[in-house]
Amino acid sequence: MPFTAYYLDSDGKLHGNLTEEQLKKSYDSGAGLLWVDISETSHEDSQFLERVFHFHPLAIEDCVSTNIHPPKVDDFGDYIFIIVHGVNYAVEAEVVETAELAIFLGKNYVVSSHSYPLLSIEAVKQLVERDGRPMKRSADFLAYSIIDALVDNVLPTVDRMTEIAEDIEEEVVHQPQQPTLEAILKLKRSAVHLHRVMAPQREVLNRISRGDFELIGENAKIFYRDIYDHIVRIEDLNQTVRDMTDNALATYMSSVANKQNEVMKILSIVAAIFLPLGLITGIFGMNFVNMPELNLPWGYYAVLGFIGFAILIVMWLFWARGWINWGRRSASRIKPFAVDKEKLVGYIGRIKRGRRRSI
Amino acid sequence: MPFTAYYLDSDGKLHGNLTEEQLKKSYDSGAGLLWVDISETSHEDSQFLERVFHFHPLAIEDCVSTNIHPPKVDDFGDYIFIIVHGVNYAVEAEVVETAELAIFLGKNYVVSSHSYPLLSIEAVKQLVERDGRPMKRSADFLAYSIIDALVDNVLPTVDRMTEIAEDIEEEVVHQPQQPTLEAILKLKRSAVHLHRVMAPQREVLNRISRGDFELIGENAKIFYRDIYDHIVRIEDLNQTVRDMTDNALATYMSSVANKQNEVMKILSIVAAIFLPLGLITGIFGMNFVNMPELNLPWGYYAVLGFIGFAILIVMWLFWARGWINWGRRSASRIKPFAVDKEKLVGYIGRIKRGRRRSI
Amino acid sequence: MPFTAYYLDSDGKLHGNLTEEQLKKSYDSGAGLLWVDISETSHEDSQFLERVFHFHPLAIEDCVSTNIHPPKVDDFGDYIFIIVHGVNYAVEAEVVETAELAIFLGKNYVVSSHSYPLLSIEAVKQLVERDGRPMKRSADFLAYSIIDALVDNVLPTVDRMTEIAEDIEEEVVHQPQQPTLEAILKLKRSAVHLHRVMAPQREVLNRISRGDFELIGENAKIFYRDIYDHIVRIEDLNQTVRDMTDNALATYMSSVANKQNEVMKILSIVAAIFLPLGLITGIFGMNFVNMPELNLPWGYYAVLGFIGFAILIVMWLFWARGWINWGRRSASRIKPFAVDKEKLVGYIGRIKRGRRRSI
Amino acid sequence: MPFTAYYLDSDGKLHGNLTEEQLKKSYDSGAGLLWVDISETSHEDSQFLERVFHFHPLAIEDCVSTNIHPPKVDDFGDYIFIIVHGVNYAVEAEVVETAELAIFLGKNYVVSSHSYPLLSIEAVKQLVERDGRPMKRSADFLAYSIIDALVDNVLPTVDRMTEIAEDIEEEVVHQPQQPTLEAILKLKRSAVHLHRVMAPQREVLNRISRGDFELIGENAKIFYRDIYDHIVRIEDLNQTVRDMTDNALATYMSSVANKQNEVMKILSIVAAIFLPLGLITGIFGMNFVNMPELNLPWGYYAVLGFIGFAILIVMWLFWARGWINWGRRSASRIKPFAVDKEKLVGYIGRIKRGRRRSI
Amino acid sequence: MPFTAYYLDSDGKLHGNLTEEQLKKSYDSGAGLLWVDISETSHEDSQFLERVFHFHPLAIEDCVSTNIHPPKVDDFGDYIFIIVHGVNYAVEAEVVETAELAIFLGKNYVVSSHSYPLLSIEAVKQLVERDGRPMKRSADFLAYSIIDALVDNVLPTVDRMTEIAEDIEEEVVHQPQQPTLEAILKLKRSAVHLHRVMAPQREVLNRISRGDFELIGENAKIFYRDIYDHIVRIEDLNQTVRDMTDNALATYMSSVANKQNEVMKILSIVAAIFLPLGLITGIFGMNFVNMPELNLPWGYYAVLGFIGFAILIVMWLFWARGWINWGRRSASRIKPFAVDKEKLVGYIGRIKRGRRRSI
Repeated sequence: MPFTAYYLDSDGKLHGNLTEEQLKKSYDSGAGLLWVDISETSHEDSQFLERVFHFHPLAIEDCVSTNIHPPKVDDFGDYIFIIVHGVNYAVEAEVVETAELAIFLGKNYVVSSHSYPLLSIEAVKQLVERDGRPMKRSADFLAYSIIDALVDNVLPTVDRMTEIAEDIEEEVVHQPQQPTLEAILKLKRSAVHLHRVMAPQREVLNRISRGDFELIGENAKIFYRDIYDHIVRIEDLNQTVRDMTDNALATYMSSVANKQNEVMKILSIVAAIFLPLGLITGIFGMNFVNMPELNLPWGYYAVLGFIGFAILIVMWLFWARGWINWGRRSASRIKPFAVDKEKLVGYIGRIKRGRRRSI
Repeated sequence: MPFTAYYLDSDGKLHGNLTEEQLKKSYDSGAGLLWVDISETSHEDSQFLERVFHFHPLAIEDCVSTNIHPPKVDDFGDYIFIIVHGVNYAVEAEVVETAELAIFLGKNYVVSSHSYPLLSIEAVKQLVERDGRPMKRSADFLAYSIIDALVDNVLPTVDRMTEIAEDIEEEVVHQPQQPTLEAILKLKRSAVHLHRVMAPQREVLNRISRGDFELIGENAKIFYRDIYDHIVRIEDLNQTVRDMTDNALATYMSSVANKQNEVMKILSIVAAIFLPLGLITGIFGMNFVNMPELNLPWGYYAVLGFIGFAILIVMWLFWARGWINWGRRSASRIKPFAVDKEKLVGYIGRIKRGRRRSI
Repeated sequence: MPFTAYYLDSDGKLHGNLTEEQLKKSYDSGAGLLWVDISETSHEDSQFLERVFHFHPLAIEDCVSTNIHPPKVDDFGDYIFIIVHGVNYAVEAEVVETAELAIFLGKNYVVSSHSYPLLSIEAVKQLVERDGRPMKRSADFLAYSIIDALVDNVLPTVDRMTEIAEDIEEEVVHQPQQPTLEAILKLKRSAVHLHRVMAPQREVLNRISRGDFELIGENAKIFYRDIYDHIVRIEDLNQTVRDMTDNALATYMSSVANKQNEVMKILSIVAAIFLPLGLITGIFGMNFVNMPELNLPWGYYAVLGFIGFAILIVMWLFWARGWINWGRRSASRIKPFAVDKEKLVGYIGRIKRGRRRSI
Repeated sequence: MPFTAYYLDSDGKLHGNLTEEQLKKSYDSGAGLLWVDISETSHEDSQFLERVFHFHPLAIEDCVSTNIHPPKVDDFGDYIFIIVHGVNYAVEAEVVETAELAIFLGKNYVVSSHSYPLLSIEAVKQLVERDGRPMKRSADFLAYSIIDALVDNVLPTVDRMTEIAEDIEEEVVHQPQQPTLEAILKLKRSAVHLHRVMAPQREVLNRISRGDFELIGENAKIFYRDIYDHIVRIEDLNQTVRDMTDNALATYMSSVANKQNEVMKILSIVAAIFLPLGLITGIFGMNFVNMPELNLPWGYYAVLGFIGFAILIVMWLFWARGWINWGRRSASRIKPFAVDKEKLVGYIGRIKRGRRRSI
Repeated sequence: MPFTAYYLDSDGKLHGNLTEEQLKKSYDSGAGLLWVDISETSHEDSQFLERVFHFHPLAIEDCVSTNIHPPKVDDFGDYIFIIVHGVNYAVEAEVVETAELAIFLGKNYVVSSHSYPLLSIEAVKQLVERDGRPMKRSADFLAYSIIDALVDNVLPTVDRMTEIAEDIEEEVVHQPQQPTLEAILKLKRSAVHLHRVMAPQREVLNRISRGDFELIGENAKIFYRDIYDHIVRIEDLNQTVRDMTDNALATYMSSVANKQNEVMKILSIVAAIFLPLGLITGIFGMNFVNMPELNLPWGYYAVLGFIGFAILIVMWLFWARGWINWGRRSASRIKPFAVDKEKLVGYIGRIKRGRRRSI
């Protein structure tokens, strides 16, 4: 239960490193702005939260329990209780993991609590310590600063996911293997997980920004709306990652089928060439007494010649059907995506001319 | 029709093991708090419910019939009738089965009824018998205690499903077999079934907690909201299980295709090596009179040498194409998911610097 | 146009087998309760319906036309016009077919009309004839009795579909064949069709039960709500059938792929054993003059021995790779779905202990 | 810009073949009912529409432009502007094409405009010319007649699509070929296209029939509701076609896989029989000096006998595994869909008995 | 930060190429209509926007940041801030990219800002310079002109996508290759991306056109509704492209499977012909002493004849099964989509006759 507490008193003076008593006194004064951040929250903190702030036991339990709680916002009258998620950078994992941040937002205090160390909280603390700015306005702006930093910190993860998706798109065409598939599915799980956290989070920010809560002032609402917009953007990028994994999956399946096709072709070509020729040598290997061809002095050479000729013919046949494509890179007739400039001018011309009367 | 009845009279005294007459008297008194739990409900109980409580015949029928009823809540004025589902731990099955619990919640009584023994009901009874706590507040709190215990008991099942999903993910990569597929599909059915029960249940709790019913007091509503949050969490975990089964299905299909590919490769390699060589031995097995090579003293050794050389060449060719991969574990170029710390710091820096004016 | 008419006059006396004139008189009296059931409705009935009841031409057309009309309810002021669907037991078909029932519900009359004989209508008629009960209350209760019987009659079909789905699940694992696929797809079509009829029907009952229509009294509404609940249950069971067919489809596809795999394996094993050995016999069948091994007295036996040894070795190799599995039933490591009782007790313990303060 | 105009004056007299002046006079009089139908609308008509009726330029542009406009309804105060779609029977195409009809509906006039000749418009014109009926009531009824005829004309197309779907279902089981797949996909595109046109059209009719527009009188609304019901029916039938194509696609894919399986089986059987036997003849074709079996007088016959016996054994083995099925039509154990009459009677009995008290 | 500014003063005189001071003066006058267009917006412009217009810092940040922002509209009281997207014609890419346009719309000014040069903006500027028309009415009409031109410019892209989809449909049947698949997936990504931009954009225009914002006058709303309709049309066309890619994907997968089938057939035919015949030559190549057939003078010719005969028989068998189809183009029995004219007339007849009474 290591906690950090800051108190900006009514005179605009910032006090750091408060003890529990100082903290309680600040809280009870009902003035100024108090910020308590509890990191690595555990069940022991429940007494502390009840003793000092008298929060509702259900909110405290959501706050201290190690279970994962989907993002939500609850109005308890004197304070609102918010759960939001950010990316958990403290754990090493192959799929994206999220860490949750619980915030109690009262009239003149903010209590934030999280089980994992959060880089975004550190960043806000540094800002507070340097010049106290995030605390200079009011409690709702402080909460905004904390949530905004948390949400913005999701972006590098989405960027990284996009990069991985691009790597996968490359590999899936040229070297599709079982590990590629695993990478695709892991990335998909990351994207799906992120979506499942961000969708309710967007709803939470939507409710806050449209004014469902009295504790969020008029001026602050537009800032929360900005966080909402950021989440929409994150969801958009994340959805693109998901589409890319779906496409990669289709390409992977097709590549595997193509490879199998190639294997089968080689088998068929080999069989089509050598099984018939084997019959010919078999014929002349029979031990019939009366086989006049065997006595022909050029018979043997004729057979050799025929064999060589037949090999060439069959290979040419397969080549003509497109089964063998030495040096021929298979090419698509589809022209790349490019809009005809001429056409475009025509359209714009239509705008200039045809629309005149309607403006 | 074994029923258990508890009555907490107005003086705070708890009576257990009530007979039907005592029960009827307690009910008619209109004071105190009465809890009747009917387990292994059958059609015979319908008279009992009508005789003592005069419930609506349709509600009684829903309560006593052995059909499965989706979760719902009906307001009958004097009482509300709730159907909720928990996991049925009384049956052994390969897919998750649910058991339903019917609750009549009146002003000063709760009647609960279920066809299967429920561990959660037992737990609440033990609490009542020890110190009467769940009954100490009011009927709506008693009903909350019962439903909360039922819903919380779903969690071990979801945890178990997650474990099974992880086992499947492991097996599907290394040893995909028909039984693996069956396990995947069974798990999926469990997840789908659980979802189909939990979705309307969430709606029921939502309606109760947002105050659609007069019998649920203001103080109790937030507790029902807490059950709602738990169901959301269960749904979240359950959805993750479903995603994992979908991924496992894709991996399974891909593994089967890969295995087939491997089989085909071996076939193709064997054919590509031995069919052409068979032709050579066939040639020298022909019985032509004039085959000068046959008389060469080193001819036989030349053929043997060529055969050995050809085998090595073809195998090298296949090895070079990547078809044979002794000792080479196929590796993906995709780097594991890891966010660049440098980049992250940059982002945080941006937060510190670039946002200053907006706070 | 065979119609049956019952009239319960104000004195509670039931008249059966009414002629058109009696019927018209009863209708015009505006008292008592009249029920007219028209079976095998055809275009000729439109005059009858207009002459006696003066229904709106559009409603009459919907009623008499042989086209299929989705369930709906229309309010015409003096009467409401309801179309509901039940399962058509009069036709023999491989997919579920539905029959529609049109009901005109007025203040003191009910006109029901259907093109196919309906068992549920017969059942209600028998009830009426025995003791008149379904007509004893009012027109809305009579309509309820008719619709309830119709909807309840869908259950045996859904039960039968569940049985078929279970048979399919069995067969698809052990003997997947083209006819199995056809059975799966037919069942799926039945389930989809039933869903498409039941979904709007649920909406119709929902509108009726929530009080959109004045002709449905307060007391009757809860009975209509009960039909609504039954439809929800039917939809639930039907959805389970649909999920089962989807799973069966996945299993079928996988089984087909597995079978192909098995075929390929046998081919590969045969080729891998006999093509190389064929080369060996080919070598010793060559006619070179100088082949010293041919003169070895034990040469022939050595080759025979090598061939036998090679066959054993290759088969052992394939057996070791798991390609041949005589007597080995392939088994999954996945443990069956079973929740750890210990764990469960722990959870319940948590409920007992950890929640105490919150109740 | 060929247009046809009808005018029913206040005295109930119908004037046909109006010139532009007559038409303008009728329009300006504000009495009677005027119908102007413009077929093969082009950009030249925009002046006409503006000159005579002073419609809003945006509505005129939607009306005359050759682009495709989704169905919609716009209220311009004095008139409403409706775009609805019907099937385009004027073009020959392999997928269903729709033609749009733009309608301006004013208090005493209707202007309809379409780029393609429409059979439904012709039918309404004939009705008007014969006895003027569609124009006898009011402008909203005239518009109803036009739209109703257009929507009803979609039915033969949906019927034809159902027939094609049934043909496909037949062919896909017995003779699946690439052209079958193309037919499936074309039909699916037709169904999808029709759905995409009908869904917004349903919404348009819904808005009109529920009274969003003042120009649609109370009496007319129920007629528009009837068109709405027809669209719902068309959508239902169309959705069935779509389900059938989805099933046909699954069957096609399965049939292709089955065919491949069959090909592989024949290959495996041939290889399994002849490769081992080839080894045997190869053994006795070796030239070892010491091969005592060669001197056995019955040795050759023994080998021949063994070969014949081996062929029979292997074929029997494959037959026993079910790979060869001469004359055996593969049969499914799944019983056809048929509800047990006994069971049904039981259910109905339950209705008679068990429900008595609830009525 | 190159910006272009136009000012139409109260006297209707247009001033171009304003400097920042002139611009500020025009803005402060509160009269006339001012249009400032900033192209290639960068972070430096934020001071300019704050200095001159005092916009909200969050709106400015959305405007100048290079991140992609989904379409949205925010009401800031004195002005509304709109983000809309058009196709980015300034970049060369294989999938469609969008460019965003930020618009500040005040009572008497419009500020537009974009990072990429936009052809639509140029077109509007030319219109303004020629005769000032887009600025002649009011600020909301100017914003309409800008957004309308942007949205209309999306059409050539959708047209091009439709063309590509048609090329793909052609190629996927006749020459399916890996590059075809890549083209399909790229096109799908374009369509999905466009949909993801257009869906929120439609919502933005919907909100504007239904009157959520005071700054949009009554007369302008119908023009914004027109843009909304255009977006619906674009979405419709785009959805068709998406369906075509889905169909192309199915055809591609089927074509690949068909090709593999063909490969397997050739292999099976070759093996079925030559493996048995190889056995025959093997038999007569054995070295048994007692093989009377070998001494038959016509034995050799009999074997040759049998071999020739067997080849013909087996090929005929395969031909009869439909495996070999020289010259036979596989044809589907499915008749092309064509509605029976007779039937149609019947339907229309029904309209004429059967509906008479309902009009």
